[in-house]
Amino acid sequence: MSLAAGADTDLVRACLRQPVSRTPVWFMRQAGRALPEYRAARGSGSILSAIGDAALAAELTLQPVRRYGVDAAILFSDIVVPVHAIGFGVDVEPGRGPVVAEPFRAASDLARLRPLEPDVDVPHVAEALRLVARELSGSGVALIGFAGAPFTVASYLIEGGPSRTFTRVKSLMHSDPGLWVQLMDRLAAMAVASLRAQIGAGAQAVQLFDSWAGSLSPDEYARFALPATRAVIDGVADLGVPTILFGVGTGELLGLMGTAGSDVVGVDWRVPLHEARRRVGAGHALQGNLDPALCVGPWPVVAQATREVLASGAVDADGTGHVFNLGHGVLPEADIGILGAVVDLVHAESARG
Amino acid sequence: MSLAAGADTDLVRACLRQPVSRTPVWFMRQAGRALPEYRAARGSGSILSAIGDAALAAELTLQPVRRYGVDAAILFSDIVVPVHAIGFGVDVEPGRGPVVAEPFRAASDLARLRPLEPDVDVPHVAEALRLVARELSGSGVALIGFAGAPFTVASYLIEGGPSRTFTRVKSLMHSDPGLWVQLMDRLAAMAVASLRAQIGAGAQAVQLFDSWAGSLSPDEYARFALPATRAVIDGVADLGVPTILFGVGTGELLGLMGTAGSDVVGVDWRVPLHEARRRVGAGHALQGNLDPALCVGPWPVVAQATREVLASGAVDADGTGHVFNLGHGVLPEADIGILGAVVDLVHAESARG
Repeated sequence: MSLAAGADTDLVRACLRQPVSRTPVWFMRQAGRALPEYRAARGSGSILSAIGDAALAAELTLQPVRRYGVDAAILFSDIVVPVHAIGFGVDVEPGRGPVVAEPFRAASDLARLRPLEPDVDVPHVAEALRLVARELSGSGVALIGFAGAPFTVASYLIEGGPSRTFTRVKSLMHSDPGLWVQLMDRLAAMAVASLRAQIGAGAQAVQLFDSWAGSLSPDEYARFALPATRAVIDGVADLGVPTILFGVGTGELLGLMGTAGSDVVGVDWRVPLHEARRRVGAGHALQGNLDPALCVGPWPVVAQATREVLASGAVDADGTGHVFNLGHGVLPEADIGILGAVVDLVHAESARG
Repeated sequence: MSLAAGADTDLVRACLRQPVSRTPVWFMRQAGRALPEYRAARGSGSILSAIGDAALAAELTLQPVRRYGVDAAILFSDIVVPVHAIGFGVDVEPGRGPVVAEPFRAASDLARLRPLEPDVDVPHVAEALRLVARELSGSGVALIGFAGAPFTVASYLIEGGPSRTFTRVKSLMHSDPGLWVQLMDRLAAMAVASLRAQIGAGAQAVQLFDSWAGSLSPDEYARFALPATRAVIDGVADLGVPTILFGVGTGELLGLMGTAGSDVVGVDWRVPLHEARRRVGAGHALQGNLDPALCVGPWPVVAQATREVLASGAVDADGTGHVFNLGHGVLPEADIGILGAVVDLVHAESARG
């Protein structure tokens, strides 16, 4: 029932380049510290505990829908939840991100990456999605699930935490490509299992976050990241929900990302959407790409930038094939009044007849 | 005398797209923690103290020439040295970078940015350059001076330290473009004063580091960063030494950077040099662009990547117009044996007749 409802949302229609009543808009990391109700509900507990509490995760997922009037909820979760759940030893440090106590360094570490059994390992994820889907049923607001793309998840496992240079992950992929493929295979299988379970529990679209792919040269992306990303997208294709592939700093990679099989390619703020469309190639919707750093104001600048994104983003003359979003996640210092005004402006300017 | 000697180096000739005996090579941040002799000479003192000690700065500048056999020495210094010298209140924290006690926030902060008088404010810079120039005289090794481009220096002054999002700097440029122009004017004048003094003391080429320009959209770069960068390059044009303009993540900006007036445009590892050449346009040499993250090994991967950069970098059939470098600075964990082998390989593969 939720699937049928979801298929009838502007978000899903835009992903599939079908006619929409207005351009749908949501924000990556829309559930987060910019919202006072988020800070109140989260308190000071760990993010992984909050994700593990299905009722709390559902509430955090719904808060930005109420606050901003966005066209999609995205499950409150994290890309490291599956590897955490199978006991790899991952934590998420406030203000820093995922950290790994014993990073992946050698073939012997493969044994620490057993397959994910979503019903057993992350039952709270499906439970949270069911709670949210029930709330959103019939509202026209879509529910998005997500996973980390294998390269980006691997970057945390190998580097042991956030990195600016990705030295260790690049060293491993180049020095032991056989081991790299085995690692990618396992992470791809985990992402597929996670996404299939999320879709089964009510996710009406799924996004694959390959956030750090932009650190790779085009050759590296083609050899070491794209095949596993493609495998994840192929692995959910039979379920018939739209797929979105996103990364930051991917200007040089958009053509390759366009071959990964997703319905939508997400673009950061560096590449205007009309240029991104040329690089990605035909047959895709685009998602993006207002600079999140602008969302501290002043509003006239944000309004103008929003209009430029709308003008640049329409894939065809009817304005379909564009999901409005930021070019990366909402920043903690963002002005939530401005984010709400962006939603209103996108809706007003894109309303069809 | 040193100027005449410098004009007769492969580095200067390559910058000017003149015939070279072989492709010159140097590494950004070649003087640094990857070198044991650097760690021994630096000890645990602050980097600004080391820069202020002309004899030590000269020694640190020369170490990588001896170790790697590179074709250029670059002055051991930092882009915040001028603003530090005039008393803005900048420090450089180990492992973090420049930090500012009282960041630039309002028009009243302009008063804290008086003009730089190099002879009075940073006499150690010219002294260090003279010491290095004397050592290098007749060696065929060029001496490079540098400054921070106004946008990148401003990003530290406004954010108060390194940033991933540049929220405050973007907010200021958009919300108060008049103040932004005044700030850019002052920082451009300081960079010009600094570079002119460096050239007077023996620098035979100068690099302008606009390291974080890649955080800007093309429109933002054109409006808020490029004019001041152009002013700096114009401000040293009469001195007749080659200018190099460099930034990271600038794939979308290369065409604009090609209009800044520099002889050379530096490119990070994300854009193959033959593609960068198309974007930058005719009339420029290129510098780059081996991925610094590769320089931990294994060597066969580095060797292949080095050959690909050489093949991609030659601006014309004679192989001129290319300065081999990394796509960003040497990482502390780089293998110095590999860096030396890169120099040897570049020299061997590019030797003419």
